Amino acid sequence: MPVEPLIGPKPRPDGTSIPLSAAVKAGGFVFLSGQLAHLPDGSYAGTDIETQARQTLENIDATLQQLGLSKADVCKATVYLTDPKNFAAFNKIYREYFGDTPPPARSTVGCALMDPDALIEIEFLAYAGN
Amino acid sequence: MPVEPLIGPKPRPDGTSIPLSAAVKAGGFVFLSGQLAHLPDGSYAGTDIETQARQTLENIDATLQQLGLSKADVCKATVYLTDPKNFAAFNKIYREYFGDTPPPARSTVGCALMDPDALIEIEFLAYAGN
Amino acid sequence: MPVEPLIGPKPRPDGTSIPLSAAVKAGGFVFLSGQLAHLPDGSYAGTDIETQARQTLENIDATLQQLGLSKADVCKATVYLTDPKNFAAFNKIYREYFGDTPPPARSTVGCALMDPDALIEIEFLAYAGN
Repeated sequence: MPVEPLIGPKPRPDGTSIPLSAAVKAGGFVFLSGQLAHLPDGSYAGTDIETQARQTLENIDATLQQLGLSKADVCKATVYLTDPKNFAAFNKIYREYFGDTPPPARSTVGCALMDPDALIEIEFLAYAGN
Repeated sequence: MPVEPLIGPKPRPDGTSIPLSAAVKAGGFVFLSGQLAHLPDGSYAGTDIETQARQTLENIDATLQQLGLSKADVCKATVYLTDPKNFAAFNKIYREYFGDTPPPARSTVGCALMDPDALIEIEFLAYAGN
Repeated sequence: MPVEPLIGPKPRPDGTSIPLSAAVKAGGFVFLSGQLAHLPDGSYAGTDIETQARQTLENIDATLQQLGLSKADVCKATVYLTDPKNFAAFNKIYREYFGDTPPPARSTVGCALMDPDALIEIEFLAYAGN
């Protein structure tokens, strides 16, 4: 199957879901949907960038682990921040997450997000091979 | 040819064009340029998100068909909305488009678009194999 | 090594750096981080879109050359402009850069950038093969 959904839509606490696959494999790459700082109950981990950045990275890391992947397999990141003033604080948390692992290529831009409580959305692209 | 333009710049009604290829193939992937809700005469399909979302998806679908591809070959989507308030209405149209086909991984963010009449821009990445 | 950092973080004049790799190779693709109009001393090339667009493209071209690649190997571009009013002027410079080379697929959106002096950020994806 050339385009293989690995993880489907994540149901929200109210039972609805967004029409997207959380992870899709094609050509050896694993495309992850943009993730936010949600806790399992659908609320946000916090209202500050440090807490939201840490939770978002935890959420993505759990997805990577579920797929048998790790941060070392991530080749590209796109980071959306609602406020450029949060850039330095975000980078601190992001640097801690990658630690000694070479970080992926990245673009970071300032955007509105679809949920007014979200301060950050992160999209990772991983390479798993064929 | 490692990077192969499949469809060149789309001429606009005034005869000018934007310096981009509408579709480029590389490594088995087909990269589509971001598309808007244009009608063949260069005007917009409507001024509401439902009409623009439907037209944008029709336009992209025509491009996929022109390339011998379909929605099932799309592995990743990036959706740019000018107003996060349009998210729910957009998702409804988007869900109808994919129907029973597993939707691609996706990120959706709020951005300004290059044309003041545009409410939505959608970029699809497809996998065609080698 | 499935995900191979080709160029690490670029140190800034103050000795700090952003946690990202300037270029990462995976699956034959070379992912470049978003680039700005920086001069070697860390300042910006100018305060107008023409100068910044030209410098940003020069910076990316230098990265491509360092990797043994050229504009003909670029399959996808994402362009972030802080002001949609700069679209036409940007396209003029961008068209000059690509000249007779078929331009990559592209999306262009309006975003805030992480540096208040930046008017443009460009991300290129190249294909180098295996």
